[in-house]
Amino acid sequence: MNAPEASVLRDTILAAKAAGLILAGLSSPQRQALLADLSAAFKDPQIQTAIIAGNRLDLDLAREAEQKGELASALVNRLSIDAKKIATLCDGLLQMSRAPEVVGQQLTNRLLDDNLVLKRITCPLGVLGVVFEARPDALVQITGLALKSGNAVILKGGKEALNTNRVLTVVIHNVLSAHNIDTRAVVLIEDREGVAELLKQNDLVDLMIARGSSQFVHYVRDNTSIPVMAHADGICHLYLHSDADSSKAERIAVDSKTSYPAACNTVETLLWDVNAAVAADAAINALLGANVQVRGCEATRARHPQILAATETDWDTEYGELIISVKQVANLDEALAHIARHGSRHTESIITQDQAAADRFLAEVDAACCFHNASTRFSDGYRFGLGAEVGISTDKLHARGPVGVEGLVTYRWLLSGNGQITTEYGEGKKSFLHKDL
Amino acid sequence: MNAPEASVLRDTILAAKAAGLILAGLSSPQRQALLADLSAAFKDPQIQTAIIAGNRLDLDLAREAEQKGELASALVNRLSIDAKKIATLCDGLLQMSRAPEVVGQQLTNRLLDDNLVLKRITCPLGVLGVVFEARPDALVQITGLALKSGNAVILKGGKEALNTNRVLTVVIHNVLSAHNIDTRAVVLIEDREGVAELLKQNDLVDLMIARGSSQFVHYVRDNTSIPVMAHADGICHLYLHSDADSSKAERIAVDSKTSYPAACNTVETLLWDVNAAVAADAAINALLGANVQVRGCEATRARHPQILAATETDWDTEYGELIISVKQVANLDEALAHIARHGSRHTESIITQDQAAADRFLAEVDAACCFHNASTRFSDGYRFGLGAEVGISTDKLHARGPVGVEGLVTYRWLLSGNGQITTEYGEGKKSFLHKDL
Repeated sequence: MNAPEASVLRDTILAAKAAGLILAGLSSPQRQALLADLSAAFKDPQIQTAIIAGNRLDLDLAREAEQKGELASALVNRLSIDAKKIATLCDGLLQMSRAPEVVGQQLTNRLLDDNLVLKRITCPLGVLGVVFEARPDALVQITGLALKSGNAVILKGGKEALNTNRVLTVVIHNVLSAHNIDTRAVVLIEDREGVAELLKQNDLVDLMIARGSSQFVHYVRDNTSIPVMAHADGICHLYLHSDADSSKAERIAVDSKTSYPAACNTVETLLWDVNAAVAADAAINALLGANVQVRGCEATRARHPQILAATETDWDTEYGELIISVKQVANLDEALAHIARHGSRHTESIITQDQAAADRFLAEVDAACCFHNASTRFSDGYRFGLGAEVGISTDKLHARGPVGVEGLVTYRWLLSGNGQITTEYGEGKKSFLHKDL
Repeated sequence: MNAPEASVLRDTILAAKAAGLILAGLSSPQRQALLADLSAAFKDPQIQTAIIAGNRLDLDLAREAEQKGELASALVNRLSIDAKKIATLCDGLLQMSRAPEVVGQQLTNRLLDDNLVLKRITCPLGVLGVVFEARPDALVQITGLALKSGNAVILKGGKEALNTNRVLTVVIHNVLSAHNIDTRAVVLIEDREGVAELLKQNDLVDLMIARGSSQFVHYVRDNTSIPVMAHADGICHLYLHSDADSSKAERIAVDSKTSYPAACNTVETLLWDVNAAVAADAAINALLGANVQVRGCEATRARHPQILAATETDWDTEYGELIISVKQVANLDEALAHIARHGSRHTESIITQDQAAADRFLAEVDAACCFHNASTRFSDGYRFGLGAEVGISTDKLHARGPVGVEGLVTYRWLLSGNGQITTEYGEGKKSFLHKDL
């Protein structure tokens, strides 16, 4: 193996990998206690005061930047952390503490032959690299998920949250120390150079989780040979079938587009069946009423002359803001073809009262999440009941769609024998039993 | 999306993708019948005659090349197909026909709220690209696995087997036709240019399976953005612990090294504990007796002066032939450290009568397969009871170790509602039920 050059960060990650072995080897009660104690630490009033003080430094800088127009207000809101947000984090950590174990779970227990037993047991991936937006609560959630899954974690949060992240990391390190776990199991990287260095450690880091802008995710994918799990592009569609209920169309269109336009599970294109004009009109009027910029195909503009004309590039665009493209399609076939060509395999939803059409849509659309009469915004780990989520994957291998703690483990095959060799088996010799125990 | 340029192969793969939808939608009885009929077709004496005639063309060319020294004898043996090998293939296909379904299996069934049901259902990956060695039986096994998992498959076998592969593909196509399935669900590529073209189709091909030399696997990984599942390097170790049984050490060392030296699950380095000299001597003498070239560290050569000296590069070398490197280690810690540094996360085995040492080895070694008192050669889909295998993966994400048909499926999240939107939920509003059904 051609190991990357030595560096301070590389030494830290080597230590993290060793500390990860301790995390992997924790018993279930030890892991529960660790997460419960982490929850308790964040409940401590003095600790909360320290966190909020750190956060104030970040917020002051952010508000200055906001006034200069260098930072969006939404980002400032996400950056702030208060007693209420901390209480939510404490609840989350306590839930993780109590949730079923994901490490050391037996997936296979098979007798291959007398005294030759094969087990398949879940285990942590090892070392996670996580680069995420300037949202301090994300640091705590991600660390909780890493500890639950027995992984060491190298964290790099958005630079605007640095002061808050430093305080949070100290709290986490103190709890790790109290459990005799090397604090380097959780490492905070503070600068961009660290990320570039991290991406080179393909022999030490087992999974990179990249959150943030689509541009950033592409940067990560293009600059590492470490497997990447990412919120990549989310080009989601809402298809109003000929048998769509107008009121559902209207409600779901508005929720899917406006409840959080920057999220990857937001709808970008509304497809309407030529026989769903009434539902389409209702949805379009509701979107316009909710201050959404609507860009339509010719058939759509024939009914709504006031809207802008969509161009071919609109069908491949993730707006990330209050803009939606609208296109008329001849039928379900054409809707499926449009989604197959332009969708990003994230979330696709059909609005219809026709169960057969819904069944076909759910069976044929090649996406992580396929919905019927529901908002695309349900595509979310919390809403799916996975607890916290590390992200939504549009890849097909390993975890798909919203990824919870189960996506952070792998398994190993363990075989215990008493001296068996393979040349004993075969035609005219011993046979395998292959008996599941 | 920037789709690759149009080409004849691209059109074929587009057709394969569409045909894959038919495969994905087959009912369980239909899929069983398809595989059973494929098995029956290969039992037909006329078809067997045609296959063997095609194979004779390949064998004649191969033997010419062998006489010129251009082709290894082992390759010629693997290339040949006879009535006995065909009978084994028929059995395998019939077993696949009868094995439990892997498509359409429900993994989650959760009530998120009244009339809002989330299911997670297994589904095929879509289109598989498989590049494999000149072994005609591999073509049939891989096709069987693809059909069982509902995937279309683009096949490229070693060029030495081209005539045989053509006949086999015709047989498969005839069975697909009889089931009204577009024959382009199974595509045979005949030239290297086709492989280069295939690797570009990242928007159509969901998984590349690369079998063959380590060099070839690296070529595939370096030349595609399609996820690759591969037999990559297999640098497997056998560690003789201080409490190793000499007879087991001897038997397992010889089986692990000599039963198929070119396989990835073959042992490359024997580590022996300073307190396991007797077992080490037994193993080394047995290896030498089996015509294995032994390359030792200084401590090993002190006991066996006739053997060659190992250099640092030996610890990172996959020989693929009857050569083994041997190194003395101070204890279990040093063995674990050597494996962590030089192993390829494939298969590692400890020989010991000490259960505590075995437990620690099985718990701490970071490899797909961790064995105790068993040959590394057990690392194999058939021996593990997975039925046929598509390969052995040394990656940690998705399937790990020997990969059977379960590694060829993914899942989708299907949500069925009656108009729910996300802004209805939250503090002071509706709550999720998250009740598993």
